[in-house]
Amino acid sequence: MARIVMKFGGTSVGDCDRIKNVARRVKDEVDRGNEVAVVVSAMSGVTNQLVDYCRQIAPLHDAREYDTVVSTGEQVTIGLLAIALQEIGVQARSWMGWQIPIRSDGAHGKARIETIDTSELEKRMASGQVAVVAGFQGIGPDNRVTTLGRGGSDTSAVALAAAMKADRCDIYTDVDGVYTTDPRIVAKARKLDKITYEEMLELASLGAKVLQTRSVEMAMKHRVRVQVLSSFVDAPGTLVCDEDEIVEKELVSGIAYSRDEAKITLVRVADRPGVAAAIFGPLADANVNVDMIVQNVSEDGKSTDLTFTVGKADLDRGVKVLTEKKGELGYERLVPDSNVVKISVIGVGMRSHAGVAQKMFSTLAEKGINIQVISTSEIKVSVLVAEEYTELALRALHSAYGLDAQ
Amino acid sequence: MARIVMKFGGTSVGDCDRIKNVARRVKDEVDRGNEVAVVVSAMSGVTNQLVDYCRQIAPLHDAREYDTVVSTGEQVTIGLLAIALQEIGVQARSWMGWQIPIRSDGAHGKARIETIDTSELEKRMASGQVAVVAGFQGIGPDNRVTTLGRGGSDTSAVALAAAMKADRCDIYTDVDGVYTTDPRIVAKARKLDKITYEEMLELASLGAKVLQTRSVEMAMKHRVRVQVLSSFVDAPGTLVCDEDEIVEKELVSGIAYSRDEAKITLVRVADRPGVAAAIFGPLADANVNVDMIVQNVSEDGKSTDLTFTVGKADLDRGVKVLTEKKGELGYERLVPDSNVVKISVIGVGMRSHAGVAQKMFSTLAEKGINIQVISTSEIKVSVLVAEEYTELALRALHSAYGLDAQ
Repeated sequence: MARIVMKFGGTSVGDCDRIKNVARRVKDEVDRGNEVAVVVSAMSGVTNQLVDYCRQIAPLHDAREYDTVVSTGEQVTIGLLAIALQEIGVQARSWMGWQIPIRSDGAHGKARIETIDTSELEKRMASGQVAVVAGFQGIGPDNRVTTLGRGGSDTSAVALAAAMKADRCDIYTDVDGVYTTDPRIVAKARKLDKITYEEMLELASLGAKVLQTRSVEMAMKHRVRVQVLSSFVDAPGTLVCDEDEIVEKELVSGIAYSRDEAKITLVRVADRPGVAAAIFGPLADANVNVDMIVQNVSEDGKSTDLTFTVGKADLDRGVKVLTEKKGELGYERLVPDSNVVKISVIGVGMRSHAGVAQKMFSTLAEKGINIQVISTSEIKVSVLVAEEYTELALRALHSAYGLDAQ
Repeated sequence: MARIVMKFGGTSVGDCDRIKNVARRVKDEVDRGNEVAVVVSAMSGVTNQLVDYCRQIAPLHDAREYDTVVSTGEQVTIGLLAIALQEIGVQARSWMGWQIPIRSDGAHGKARIETIDTSELEKRMASGQVAVVAGFQGIGPDNRVTTLGRGGSDTSAVALAAAMKADRCDIYTDVDGVYTTDPRIVAKARKLDKITYEEMLELASLGAKVLQTRSVEMAMKHRVRVQVLSSFVDAPGTLVCDEDEIVEKELVSGIAYSRDEAKITLVRVADRPGVAAAIFGPLADANVNVDMIVQNVSEDGKSTDLTFTVGKADLDRGVKVLTEKKGELGYERLVPDSNVVKISVIGVGMRSHAGVAQKMFSTLAEKGINIQVISTSEIKVSVLVAEEYTELALRALHSAYGLDAQ
C-alpha cells in the first residue's frame, strides 16, 4: 500500500465527461490498494472567465475579493469529482482550503502555503475515503480565502504530498512526461524516465512549461517524488526525484529554449566603478528583471559595451528607463533586439564532466550559428543566438549530446 | 440613521454592468447615512448551470457535494459586488456563510437557518463598511457548506435583517412591487403601498411569485418590515408589514390565481368512517399533496362523491395510486381534470366583514362561471373554476372589489 497524491489540471477536468474519466483514473489507484488524495484545478476556461469579471468591474481590484471570486472554480470541480467518484462506488468527499485547513500567508492573489493540517484527511484516507482537495487555494491569517497565483494547483499538490508524507505526487497533465527537448521541434526527442529536481527546475524556468517552478522548488525542499504523466494515456510518465534515485545519469538530460527574452546592448558605456549599479538599479526599480549579462573588456580603458537580456514583455519599458537616463549613464548608443532565443543545455552530469560547454560551442559553430551571450551555472550552459536558428540549434545539440531516440 | 438589509436577485446581478448598477443603489443608501448589509444571489443562469453539471455527473448525487458546487454562484457575486462598491468609493467586504457564520441545520440542499452571529458585521457596519453577504448558503453542523433551497436568498436576507434587528429589509427584484393581481392579465391592477404578512403569505403561496414563502413566514415571525421594489426603477415598492402599520385597510387586498392545480373526483365512494383516511393516506405516502377537498352530502346514505385538488405535476402519480387501490376503496369511477384554475380573494379585512365570499360567488355567477370547489380560510376565499375563465374571472372580481386603478 502506498499513499498517493494525484493532481489533475484544468484540461483534464474540462467538462463532465473528463471529470468522469478522472474519477476512473482515481478508482484505478484506489483499486491497487492505495490511499489517495486528489488535487484539482478549475475546469479549463473558468478561471479566465472569473478573472475577466473582476477586471470588467474594476481594472485595479481588492486582491481579497479577487481571491473570493476566482477560488470558486476549484470549489466547483471538487464537488463534481466527489460526486463522480461516489457514482462509481468510491468513497470520497471534497475539501476546500479552509476546511482542511491549508493555512497560507496573507499575500492575496499570490499567497504561500505555510502549514497543512492533514490529520483529518489521513484518518479518512486510512478508512478508504478519497480526499478531493481544491487546488490553488488556502486560508489566510484574516480567515479569508487566499489563492496561490496562476498554476498554483501544482504547488497545492506537492505541499499536500509533503505534509502527508506521500510516497508519490502524480501530476496529470496534457503531455505524457518530460522530454529531452520540445518534441514539436525535434522529432527525435525522447521522454525521460527520471529527472532530478535541479534539472527539472532549470527546465521549468527555461520554458518547458510542464510543472510550475514553485512546485518543483517545494518538491526539492521536501524531497517529494513527483511524477508527470498524461491524464488521457495510461502509461508511466517522468519521475522527478532525488539524484540518488537515478542510477544511470546522463551527462546532459535536456535542452531547453526560451523565446521570451530580448537583448539590450549599451554601446560605449563609461568603464568606471558604479556604472553597473547605475544601469541595473533603475531597471530593478521599474520591475524589469535582467537575466544574462555580458560586459566586454574595455579596449581603451575608458568605455566598454554592455549586453544583457530582459523579458520580451519588459523590453519597451527597459528601453524607456535607460533612454531617460542616457545623460547620466553616458553611453553612446542603445541597441535593442528582440529576435533572439535562449538555448540551454541542462544536466547534473556536467558537475563532474568537463567539455559540456565546449561541445555546445563547437556544435553551434559547425552550423554557422553565432553565439551572442553566454551564461553558465553548475548544471546548465545557456547561450543567446538569433531566433531564426532555434530549430537548427536544438536539433544539432540534441544529436551532439546523444539524446536522439533510436 | 437606519439599518437596512438590501437583497438583489439573479436578474439584478445578471452581468457586470448590472452589478455596477446595484453598487450605485447601495451607495445611495449609504449616502443617506444608513448602515447597510447587502445579500445577493448568483448571477442569473449560473445556478442552473451548476445544478446541470451535478446532474450530468450523476442524476442522484450527494447533497453535501451539490451544496459545495452550487454555493459558488453567490460567492462569485459577493466578491464582484464588493469590488464594484470599492470602485465607487464605498467601503465594503464580502462574507460567505461560513465566515459570518450563518449556522444552519444539516439538511443539505434545503437547510434551515438556525443562528446568525452578526456581531462582527454590526461592528464593521457601524464603522461605515457595507457587508456583502452571500445569500442561499450557510454552514451546517458538520462544518460543510449548506444551501437553503431555490429562492433561499430571500430567506437569507430576512433572517439577516431579523438577526441584526434591521429597520427594513428591501428585496430588489424585476417587478416594482406587489400588485392587486397579475398586471399581465388585468390592465387595471394597482401596485399596493402596503400589505400584511398574512396577505403576502397567501399571495406568495398562491402564485404571485414575488417573495419566497419561507422568507415571508420568517418576516412575520420576527416582525421584519420587508419592502419589495424594482432594482431597475427608482421608486418605492410595496411594504410587507404588520397589520397595525396599515391605517386604511382594504377589505380585499389582492386576487391571486394558480394554474398549478388539478382536480380529481371519485364518483360513488362508500360513505363510511375511515374512507377519507383510506384515500388520503396512500396519496400522502406517495408524496402527493392535497389542497382543496369537497365531500358531497350522501344522497343514499351509502355512497358519496369526493372531489379534491393536487398539484398538476402530481396528477398522474395521484391517479395511479388511487387506481391501484380501486378495489379497496370501492369507488365507481375516477375523473381527473387538469383544466382548472384556482382563484383566491385575499384580505385581512374579511375577518371583520361579512359578505366577501358572497360577492365572489355572485360576481362569478353573473359572468356565467361555474364554481367547482370552494375553500376558505380566515383571510381568503378560493374557488376552483374551468381554466378558460381565468382572465374573465380575475377582471370581474378585480372590479367587483373596487381594486381597479383610476
